[in-house]
Amino acid sequence: MKKIGVVLSGCGVRDGSEIHEAVLTLLAIDQAGAEAVCMAPDSELAEVNHCTMESTGASRKVLVESARIARGNIKDSKAVTADELDALIFPGGFGAALNLCDFGQKGAAASVNPEVARLVREMHAAKKPIGAICIAPTLLALVLGKTAGPTLTIGNDAATAAEIEKTGARHRTCGVTEVVLDTANRIVTTPAYMLGTRISEVAAGITKCVNEVIRLA
Amino acid sequence: MKKIGVVLSGCGVRDGSEIHEAVLTLLAIDQAGAEAVCMAPDSELAEVNHCTMESTGASRKVLVESARIARGNIKDSKAVTADELDALIFPGGFGAALNLCDFGQKGAAASVNPEVARLVREMHAAKKPIGAICIAPTLLALVLGKTAGPTLTIGNDAATAAEIEKTGARHRTCGVTEVVLDTANRIVTTPAYMLGTRISEVAAGITKCVNEVIRLA
Repeated sequence: MKKIGVVLSGCGVRDGSEIHEAVLTLLAIDQAGAEAVCMAPDSELAEVNHCTMESTGASRKVLVESARIARGNIKDSKAVTADELDALIFPGGFGAALNLCDFGQKGAAASVNPEVARLVREMHAAKKPIGAICIAPTLLALVLGKTAGPTLTIGNDAATAAEIEKTGARHRTCGVTEVVLDTANRIVTTPAYMLGTRISEVAAGITKCVNEVIRLA
Repeated sequence: MKKIGVVLSGCGVRDGSEIHEAVLTLLAIDQAGAEAVCMAPDSELAEVNHCTMESTGASRKVLVESARIARGNIKDSKAVTADELDALIFPGGFGAALNLCDFGQKGAAASVNPEVARLVREMHAAKKPIGAICIAPTLLALVLGKTAGPTLTIGNDAATAAEIEKTGARHRTCGVTEVVLDTANRIVTTPAYMLGTRISEVAAGITKCVNEVIRLA
């Protein structure tokens, strides 16, 4: 059974992993007969109230909140190496751009959580496929932009696409039910809620992304 | 477009709505061309750390945490009446038995959040269908057991089934990908993670439950 790493960043669209995207990723992995290996960094996040969408000023633990999506079956990402995985997938949500890196604040000048960056570099060096959903492709641009110049999508947001291109990565516009495949780099990306307004269309794009990643694995 | 109320109870299997079940419910509703109306009571829950599965001693707000699953599009359940809905569905998770009622502590002697009980009685009186997933059928047993004697399933857990039967409801054993349909009461139930070990089998049962509820609506 292929083992697919799923890197979570909290639990909730505004301060963590987008919950629908994360669950749809786990569903597509299981439907394809592969096994999800959930992980998250053991770091802090700045809590957002999801009724008001305002910051509360409090912090929560990324790993502990991510465990809600994983039903407790989760690892600290610093303890995971590429050896034990066949592929790696990043669901979206603001957490991917706030807790796994700081693209949300700094754009192309952002830095990436060192252990997450290390795992991405290991996977890429081992020619194992990587999927990224919604805003999460920005993290791949930050890690691999200069060295590998991957082709990615975050949908059609011009400002975000411009920041991605500053890293050395290339951005391609893509519809919500489609994926962008970079065959040379074995990277598959899909816009999900960067564009989508309905969970069913987001599910279509994520299922296509996960299936393509598993096919490449 | 049919409006399907979805009653959430927090965000996480041990202290709120089971996240996979809630998202799979929203997916099936959208795929069927209906509209989800998410709601939750504005009450407190006792927080559980989902890495250790131990109580933290802290509390969180049921409505605010549920909003994470609903991406902010959520109502206080006390403001919702049966007039504005075509059907009502309860995803599972311990929250359904701890935050919407106290079946988790008191079994058949439990009481139900008054506004949630009021909405269930309104829907049942209006002959509008009600779906309940995982442990959530216990709530329907508490509200409707004496008056309507509904037939329900929570899978095959004998102790829980015995408590359900004490309320006046009847329990039927059911597989994870199947549903129990009570035609007279227009109630559809499915075991989900009371039995399931894979998200894909839970998805199959929930999709069947949601489709049956929408067909009856």
